[in-house]
Amino acid sequence: MINIALDAMGGDFAPSEIVKGGIMGGRDTGVHLLFVGQSALLREKLAQHDLAGLDYEIVDAPEVIGISESPAQAVHRKRNASIVVAAQLVKDGIADAVVTMGHSGAALVAGRWILGMLPGMDRPALPAPYLGIQPDVTLIDVGGNTDVRPHHLLQFALMGAAYAEAVVGIAYPRVGLLSNGSEPGKGSLLLKEAFPLLADSPLNFIGNIEGNDIPAGKVDVVVHDGLLGNVVLKLTEGIVEALLATTVHRLQERLPTETNAIQATVADVLAANHYSRYGAMPLLGLNGLLLIGHGKSKAPAVAAGLKMAQKAVAGGILPRLRGAWQRVQNSIS
Amino acid sequence: MINIALDAMGGDFAPSEIVKGGIMGGRDTGVHLLFVGQSALLREKLAQHDLAGLDYEIVDAPEVIGISESPAQAVHRKRNASIVVAAQLVKDGIADAVVTMGHSGAALVAGRWILGMLPGMDRPALPAPYLGIQPDVTLIDVGGNTDVRPHHLLQFALMGAAYAEAVVGIAYPRVGLLSNGSEPGKGSLLLKEAFPLLADSPLNFIGNIEGNDIPAGKVDVVVHDGLLGNVVLKLTEGIVEALLATTVHRLQERLPTETNAIQATVADVLAANHYSRYGAMPLLGLNGLLLIGHGKSKAPAVAAGLKMAQKAVAGGILPRLRGAWQRVQNSIS
Repeated sequence: MINIALDAMGGDFAPSEIVKGGIMGGRDTGVHLLFVGQSALLREKLAQHDLAGLDYEIVDAPEVIGISESPAQAVHRKRNASIVVAAQLVKDGIADAVVTMGHSGAALVAGRWILGMLPGMDRPALPAPYLGIQPDVTLIDVGGNTDVRPHHLLQFALMGAAYAEAVVGIAYPRVGLLSNGSEPGKGSLLLKEAFPLLADSPLNFIGNIEGNDIPAGKVDVVVHDGLLGNVVLKLTEGIVEALLATTVHRLQERLPTETNAIQATVADVLAANHYSRYGAMPLLGLNGLLLIGHGKSKAPAVAAGLKMAQKAVAGGILPRLRGAWQRVQNSIS
Repeated sequence: MINIALDAMGGDFAPSEIVKGGIMGGRDTGVHLLFVGQSALLREKLAQHDLAGLDYEIVDAPEVIGISESPAQAVHRKRNASIVVAAQLVKDGIADAVVTMGHSGAALVAGRWILGMLPGMDRPALPAPYLGIQPDVTLIDVGGNTDVRPHHLLQFALMGAAYAEAVVGIAYPRVGLLSNGSEPGKGSLLLKEAFPLLADSPLNFIGNIEGNDIPAGKVDVVVHDGLLGNVVLKLTEGIVEALLATTVHRLQERLPTETNAIQATVADVLAANHYSRYGAMPLLGLNGLLLIGHGKSKAPAVAAGLKMAQKAVAGGILPRLRGAWQRVQNSIS
């Protein structure tokens, strides 16, 4: 039995869409669901739905983090806020994972404070699937780690590989360092120092990769700092939009009677690129599973997030990452 | 009269394709062309073409940099190699610019050594048009500047703006720092320190921009280090290829009888993304115009490179950059 805590109060459309998505996802995955939030409000929201076949309970978290508060400070002040209570459920072994669509800064603070870090991991990092184009390729970090040291990149690589094994289902995933050339001597000083750390690790390190290797799927785990990761994701999003607009325009000039088929095709391609298909991603490096999704998530994204949480638990992402770090230690000593 | 020195010995297809492209481009632009290379060989190659209406001369450069030599060292040893002789023509005021498809490392060394740097410019940087999707957007640096300090980013911004004014023809171009969020506090330590330098400069600085702002054309000059720039270019290339392949596949399923129109449309979109449309780009920051193109350039790319050189000279890119640096100095003092 997998137990997932859902932060029912986090996100732009909380609690209504979170509750709705929780019901969809809970039924879909068959997990035991813990709705965490103001219990009276949640009971009211839940009562608006058919709950047949749903395995759930409500865990009261009476405090709410206000819109004007610093989420990071509020986490420490409000021990009964939903994200704090939900993380505590994981810490206490009552839940296997927590899923939140709330403020990612608050989730990060709650995760570090309550769950702590895994041995060998200095900073939490966020992976992301390379949406639509190569959804089985994992980018890490796409979180806030804009200034990193070489050993952080090794840690990100271990995290990304554990994720690729546990969630994507790739045995011995190919790990590459995103650089400006494929030769070993290429890249910034940071990359040149990180290269031997990855090469000497038990990872399946394939060396430096270039930007075009990502959409070509020549790598399973792409390692970079959070600045580069953010640029890769946002740029991809922008190119997909711009390029499809151009292509549609030119196609419609050539095939004026086929507008419907052209539009439908592009809608398919765009749908494959939408974040809601993944719902939430685990913040890696924490000593416990905490998944964060988009603040704008509606019910389908919440349901997808629960599915991701189920995969992360069932795939054993945490024991894999602990084991990987142990192997690094053994290979050094 | 504009005089352009063409390194006829540089590039994978030199001298045949360089000579051929030089003739095309020379006739097209009406510049006075100086073919630089082994004169007997060049005379022989030129004799194979109709040279009517071509304004040209041959400048002898008897030495050749061998394939096994370090291009950087060879530049210093062989003062009569074509790239060295061509750069010297610019230094001596005989040519207004040099265009080479040869080894970019050798061109960089020859440029720094013979032409030197402009006042205030520490390192040469390479701009690139954001091909096809937003060709009037300029990225800088896409060269080898992977480790930079904040003041280098200011210099790149000045160079990129001078290029956008002189070559793209944009008055007071919008300059943005590529970051992982649009707010002023976003980005790495490097970006946070560069931000006020750009904000306090006379540039039209619009602040931090995100990856998706590039294909959306929300900026004219995108400033970043060479690692980020390389990733942006290569990633774009790869996405265009992968996304068009997916779109074609899906379209052909829906419109099986329209394969020709679909393929032709995609060929158009891809052609708009090909580097040969630009030919060569000026290495900025040098005290003289030196343009470098792709080693794989064939005649049409060489011709396009001559056109780019003509624009760079006629647009006054060097006086603009000198003036911009002077204004920065005045705004500080």
